[in-house]
Amino acid sequence: MGEPRQGDGGWTVTEVRLISEIEVELVRAMASDEAVAEAARVSTAKDRAATGRPVQGLIGALMRERHGSPFEHGMFTFRVHAPIFVFREWMRHRAGWSYNEQSGRYTEFEPVFYVPAPGRPLVQQGKAMDYDLRPGSDGQYVTAQMDLEDGCREAYERYRRMLGEGIAREVARMVLPVSTYSTMYATCNPRSLMHFLSLRTREDDAAYPSKPQVEIEWAARQCEKVLEDSMPVTYAAWHANGRVAP
Amino acid sequence: MGEPRQGDGGWTVTEVRLISEIEVELVRAMASDEAVAEAARVSTAKDRAATGRPVQGLIGALMRERHGSPFEHGMFTFRVHAPIFVFREWMRHRAGWSYNEQSGRYTEFEPVFYVPAPGRPLVQQGKAMDYDLRPGSDGQYVTAQMDLEDGCREAYERYRRMLGEGIAREVARMVLPVSTYSTMYATCNPRSLMHFLSLRTREDDAAYPSKPQVEIEWAARQCEKVLEDSMPVTYAAWHANGRVAP
Amino acid sequence: MGEPRQGDGGWTVTEVRLISEIEVELVRAMASDEAVAEAARVSTAKDRAATGRPVQGLIGALMRERHGSPFEHGMFTFRVHAPIFVFREWMRHRAGWSYNEQSGRYTEFEPVFYVPAPGRPLVQQGKAMDYDLRPGSDGQYVTAQMDLEDGCREAYERYRRMLGEGIAREVARMVLPVSTYSTMYATCNPRSLMHFLSLRTREDDAAYPSKPQVEIEWAARQCEKVLEDSMPVTYAAWHANGRVAP
Amino acid sequence: MGEPRQGDGGWTVTEVRLISEIEVELVRAMASDEAVAEAARVSTAKDRAATGRPVQGLIGALMRERHGSPFEHGMFTFRVHAPIFVFREWMRHRAGWSYNEQSGRYTEFEPVFYVPAPGRPLVQQGKAMDYDLRPGSDGQYVTAQMDLEDGCREAYERYRRMLGEGIAREVARMVLPVSTYSTMYATCNPRSLMHFLSLRTREDDAAYPSKPQVEIEWAARQCEKVLEDSMPVTYAAWHANGRVAP
Repeated sequence: MGEPRQGDGGWTVTEVRLISEIEVELVRAMASDEAVAEAARVSTAKDRAATGRPVQGLIGALMRERHGSPFEHGMFTFRVHAPIFVFREWMRHRAGWSYNEQSGRYTEFEPVFYVPAPGRPLVQQGKAMDYDLRPGSDGQYVTAQMDLEDGCREAYERYRRMLGEGIAREVARMVLPVSTYSTMYATCNPRSLMHFLSLRTREDDAAYPSKPQVEIEWAARQCEKVLEDSMPVTYAAWHANGRVAP
Repeated sequence: MGEPRQGDGGWTVTEVRLISEIEVELVRAMASDEAVAEAARVSTAKDRAATGRPVQGLIGALMRERHGSPFEHGMFTFRVHAPIFVFREWMRHRAGWSYNEQSGRYTEFEPVFYVPAPGRPLVQQGKAMDYDLRPGSDGQYVTAQMDLEDGCREAYERYRRMLGEGIAREVARMVLPVSTYSTMYATCNPRSLMHFLSLRTREDDAAYPSKPQVEIEWAARQCEKVLEDSMPVTYAAWHANGRVAP
Repeated sequence: MGEPRQGDGGWTVTEVRLISEIEVELVRAMASDEAVAEAARVSTAKDRAATGRPVQGLIGALMRERHGSPFEHGMFTFRVHAPIFVFREWMRHRAGWSYNEQSGRYTEFEPVFYVPAPGRPLVQQGKAMDYDLRPGSDGQYVTAQMDLEDGCREAYERYRRMLGEGIAREVARMVLPVSTYSTMYATCNPRSLMHFLSLRTREDDAAYPSKPQVEIEWAARQCEKVLEDSMPVTYAAWHANGRVAP
Repeated sequence: MGEPRQGDGGWTVTEVRLISEIEVELVRAMASDEAVAEAARVSTAKDRAATGRPVQGLIGALMRERHGSPFEHGMFTFRVHAPIFVFREWMRHRAGWSYNEQSGRYTEFEPVFYVPAPGRPLVQQGKAMDYDLRPGSDGQYVTAQMDLEDGCREAYERYRRMLGEGIAREVARMVLPVSTYSTMYATCNPRSLMHFLSLRTREDDAAYPSKPQVEIEWAARQCEKVLEDSMPVTYAAWHANGRVAP
């Protein structure tokens, strides 16, 4: 894949892979409701074992009153395979997030690009900063698919040609579109994850509703599932309190 | 510019602008050597006016011993016009940096793209993570210029065509290359600026030499000039101490 | 003040100053509603001058949808004179805050201490993490005043005696109570200030009500006044949106 | 302990515990040299398994060139038992650190206080911001021990008396000295730990030597041991590169 081959008419043809998925894989985690309670109890009890108050009540109170720090003593590392435009949004999250992304200077990108699947809403309606999207017509899907696919293929061919001429990766990559897939390691703590989720998921009953682009929301939903599985009490309390990070 | 016009053969032709500059404009600043000394003296003197120790000696000692916090009580806001691949590197700086960048969801990109000027080194030599660049041959420059220019033009035409078909900006922009120019406001403090400069400029006599890509270094050098002009004592002390942020 | 003098019985007597105020002085600021709008417009408009949307509507929308970053391009530097127990709470705010506090290693503390004024609620009622305070009886005020005043005086005498014996400041200060006044420079941006205010002021109509200790709330209220004066539109929008930082 | 008892002369006597240790206990960790390499390889290799370059060389290069981000994908949680003046220094570390400390509002402090052990240097020599300490005379040790011990006992008696009178914990605690022991949970990542260590340990061969107070250095040395044990390659590379955090 990605290797040019001799085409019928004597042209080299690059095969590119067009996909519509965002992959989020949990690499490792150390996070639990118990760790939240344990850290919170440092503030309130002499003895670590002395509980009295059940975890559920304690975590609910912390969330309600926005005592955020007990939710920071944990960690999730995700491996994310997504197009560059998703990483551009993700990396705006600074506090409590750490990133390592594939470098366009040190590596050669593979010919993998994002195209919207047929189900992805395509047409904008509403004002510039407050718009919604609705499905496109069949014609619009064809246009988008063709333009994106042809654009990616041509860009990748140019990329490969420049590399073939000995031009540095850091220059050749300038031609690649923001739909090019890249890979990153992203590490966060439960609190910074909840903050990310509050801005990158769309829920009508959120206290402060957000309108993220769907591609980053797909990624966020996968992270949300990890949070729910590993910290069910925290997750439920966060959701019940308007999905605002404590 | 950017508007399609009727070409000779009946085709619409988009004119794109290809430039090789990174623009950094200082929007506003509140930062001075005196403010550093003033903050440091809170630690050491009862009276704000009581100085005794001249600013130069004080700042030199702070830098040498890496007392960093007095260098945080200031602010610089820059307006930066640069290609997306530069912003991707810049925004990895999280602590003490704030960003607002042009949104591809809320605005339409202009047809302005980066191409390397003839002087820009083009050919990689050395290992993957420790390479240097040397100038390219005439042929390599022609290849790079043509591929980048044609790639940008075609991508922008596709972008415009999708927009013309009613496809949402957040989808159409996926075809645009990372050489597309965007604009951001970036705000930092003197300490976070020094940290940025230490990693994004190349100086052989730095204590920990870095090898940034030249485009972000051009931007960093403009920021460095602002630091030097507004905080000459701090700047000199930072440089004299191996360009490691305190 | 603070100098020991010869007492009646041949003892040295230290005069200490007991006060009940927290002083917050604005040292300098560069922050405005216009700067928020200007930064936000980078995201949405090609031209900085092109406004259309009035500042009020724009800032209201940013606040409602928790677009926080445009509120970071500003700065406030406060000089705060407060007891150590207030600084201990304040410095838990990490993101967007910079601090320089008087050092007990580099300086000698003055004999200034905090005592609750008669109006300060004194008696706890309710559960450990959810208690309220009500005024104390006259007897309780006398007890508190006497114990705090005598405790401070004795501690300061010990401090001075140790210093007089040549013992290092960093050791002698260990005896000083957390009611000892210290001074700090604290710098923040409008967003981090709003976050601080949301946790350190008590308002029943806040979306997530907090119960700060009154001493830090007094400080916070002075900061809040500065925010209101310098950024009235931002302030009003923040308050109207439940006093949750965007 | 801490409970008043009937003394000989009819007075109640509080027994206080005076100790000279700082305890640092590793609660949990998820950190390894392999995780650093794994994150770094995202930048440089397509395949996670594809190593080629041994971990040691890779980590050495990252450290030398200050590629800091791969060192952030790990976590250490420490439980620290230390006097308040140590926590005051520790909590100035903001980036990559999370804290939960015992609350003087929610809990009652135990009568445990710090006093310098005989070996602890006691006398300051040199300039205000550049001083060293040398051992004290026997007389100085007696003075310091007596003043600190008596000061702590009297302060704790006042504290207990106020609590006994029904005065709120948040008021009564104002009389307690900064030598009072408290407990915290502190979580950091390997990079933020190295930064802490660079400022809180004293090594003559460090590139930027620091002069921390010995009590926080004792704590830091225990953290350093944890780093060395869990990430030996990272630790050695950091030390070899002047103990400057990457």
